[in-house]
Amino acid sequence: MISSDYFNFEILKKSTASNARLGLIHTPHGDIRTPAFIFCGTKANVKGVTAFQLHEAGTQIILSNTYHLLLQPGIDVLRKAGGLQKFTGWNAPMFTDSGGFQIFCLGYGNVCSEIKGTKSAPARKTLLTVTEEGATFRSYLNGNKILLTPELSIQAQIAFGADIIVCLDECAPHHTSKIFTAEAMRRSKRWGLRCLSELERSGTGKQALSAVIQGGVYEDLRRDSADFANENAFDCFAIGGSLGITKQQMFEITQMTCEMLDRNRNVHLLGIGGIPDIFNGVKCGIDTFDCVSPTRIARHGIALVKASEIDSSSGKPNNLNINHARFVDDTKPISPTCDCYTCKTVSRAYIHHLFRADEMLGGQLISLHNIRFMNRLMEDIRSAIASDTLDKCRSEYLG
Amino acid sequence: MISSDYFNFEILKKSTASNARLGLIHTPHGDIRTPAFIFCGTKANVKGVTAFQLHEAGTQIILSNTYHLLLQPGIDVLRKAGGLQKFTGWNAPMFTDSGGFQIFCLGYGNVCSEIKGTKSAPARKTLLTVTEEGATFRSYLNGNKILLTPELSIQAQIAFGADIIVCLDECAPHHTSKIFTAEAMRRSKRWGLRCLSELERSGTGKQALSAVIQGGVYEDLRRDSADFANENAFDCFAIGGSLGITKQQMFEITQMTCEMLDRNRNVHLLGIGGIPDIFNGVKCGIDTFDCVSPTRIARHGIALVKASEIDSSSGKPNNLNINHARFVDDTKPISPTCDCYTCKTVSRAYIHHLFRADEMLGGQLISLHNIRFMNRLMEDIRSAIASDTLDKCRSEYLG
Repeated sequence: MISSDYFNFEILKKSTASNARLGLIHTPHGDIRTPAFIFCGTKANVKGVTAFQLHEAGTQIILSNTYHLLLQPGIDVLRKAGGLQKFTGWNAPMFTDSGGFQIFCLGYGNVCSEIKGTKSAPARKTLLTVTEEGATFRSYLNGNKILLTPELSIQAQIAFGADIIVCLDECAPHHTSKIFTAEAMRRSKRWGLRCLSELERSGTGKQALSAVIQGGVYEDLRRDSADFANENAFDCFAIGGSLGITKQQMFEITQMTCEMLDRNRNVHLLGIGGIPDIFNGVKCGIDTFDCVSPTRIARHGIALVKASEIDSSSGKPNNLNINHARFVDDTKPISPTCDCYTCKTVSRAYIHHLFRADEMLGGQLISLHNIRFMNRLMEDIRSAIASDTLDKCRSEYLG
Repeated sequence: MISSDYFNFEILKKSTASNARLGLIHTPHGDIRTPAFIFCGTKANVKGVTAFQLHEAGTQIILSNTYHLLLQPGIDVLRKAGGLQKFTGWNAPMFTDSGGFQIFCLGYGNVCSEIKGTKSAPARKTLLTVTEEGATFRSYLNGNKILLTPELSIQAQIAFGADIIVCLDECAPHHTSKIFTAEAMRRSKRWGLRCLSELERSGTGKQALSAVIQGGVYEDLRRDSADFANENAFDCFAIGGSLGITKQQMFEITQMTCEMLDRNRNVHLLGIGGIPDIFNGVKCGIDTFDCVSPTRIARHGIALVKASEIDSSSGKPNNLNINHARFVDDTKPISPTCDCYTCKTVSRAYIHHLFRADEMLGGQLISLHNIRFMNRLMEDIRSAIASDTLDKCRSEYLG
């Protein structure tokens, strides 16, 4: 549709020092100020966190995964429920992916690691065949064979009812050849056209469709994919596929791909949300990010803080590991500058105790903190773009 | 102390049809309208529920267990934290037990089942010796031997800082002889005096001390224990020990024991909180109840509802098992008459999905509902006492 009553992207300010920009995505369930972080509610919930708590922490948008929802609870249940927002009680913007990423990741090996180039040998194989029609995989729940076509992915995403949905793409892992990557990218283009048609035919007119830019680490393939996306009526873009092995390569490919894309449409960077990666992505012109990490590490006792708030030099610059024995009687909050429920209410010692006692509330409390941390990070990044002080903001967070 | 600036019990109304009564317990952290339910926050947290959520659900008071807290995080951590309320962020009335129940239950067999008479053979033995000095047990965390004396129990409970604390007692299981039960009861009296002295010597003057009424199923032993409690400066009473095997026996022993006690002090029924048991207990004159059940069953998918709201005849009259396949696409809330966060926000189908997907949020959402349900039950019981309609209220809940 591109810019309708239901969906449009407004650029509020362009940075002078980089491609960073401030924007506003209008959706039927509300506006999203960008750059924004999208929290993962894989199976129609952000683990351990209620919709109210997400809202209280300043969350703008969450995503769910079509792959998981297709298997459980399934299209019929979600259609009868009136879509994801009514089902989950999250009455605000939502995003669903196409199911492709999980099928191909689970198919080729372990989730993420293959695409992100961090692992070379596949761990297990649930992907059975990929044909022009679609991808056949086995359900991890009951072993049933399922053929996911572009049409089925869109029909599912229509039933789920998210504000921003994604075309089914074939997601090539890092270790494959350029020929394989090119074939997957070209098939993704053909699937993209079928997704557009299916949404046109069966959709409500209220959902924005995102093209996925594939092409791996190859400039000519990325350009081919970007040109295709620019020339067709996709509402927005998502950068997928392998971004290389190193952080530097990720930055370069993201930068290169962003510059190939029509700058009037918003750009999502799929599955990336490390704090340095967000600062790099914002400079490239990325508008939205998603990653399971903030809530996943929370459940293991890792709280996100600014680098200056960590007194120990070990580990990642933003990771405060509450399991460490030194927190046993530390009466300070996780972060003295944080306004989240957890930091306003309890101490590091309390959360340390909950983790030692194996109490689920420990992971819940750090999840609330990490969600608020990520939302404040994005608020600070938006302020920094407005005042052209992005490098200063980056130093504050990363040291 | 009995009735001070910090603690007193005010009887607002006595029922004409039974010993039921409306009361108000004043504590340094606020008032408790009685009859009231005390939620179990065993290890300094109600599993899966934040302090704010407890408050939002209308909770008046929670308890923690001295046995667990002694082992983890320990007295020193809690003293440094400034007590349980500051540690947990629950800035409202709290109750701690003495540690005795867990020591003797774990010592003689499985927790609760022995005392409640539902099991005859001990499952394991962590209690090592009981002498006049105290009870020696092994820590389940590290195997260390710990001697819990009346003095240590009180010192711990002073450091924990709850508003209502409990004397260390020797809790005899159901299957023991009358001689054993009598000896345990008499030792509990001697320990009770040592607890009073220790609190007098080391306390802040702001904590109320509860005597434990022992004596098992034997009228003369219960009277001996009750007389002792009445004659000494305990602020309130807790009925402990075996209440027999059947519900009828539980009712009779509770009734009998209540009638032996000074009616100007509030009475707690230790570890009992089934809905029929609460109605029976209230009629006997019990002011407060506690039980792990509402939040424990929640984590297994059991939601509490009025009997009239269950369409299937199987199972307990108030237990709605959300795991049942019939809820897969049920768009109704758990209870259409409930005002809890869960019922106002999501459907049975959503919670059913969360349990099938093994998501912790499912247990959290039912916990929020069950906590609100128990608080509403107690609100309704208080209204029913005020209007002399307790039997009608009972029928509404139990059918």
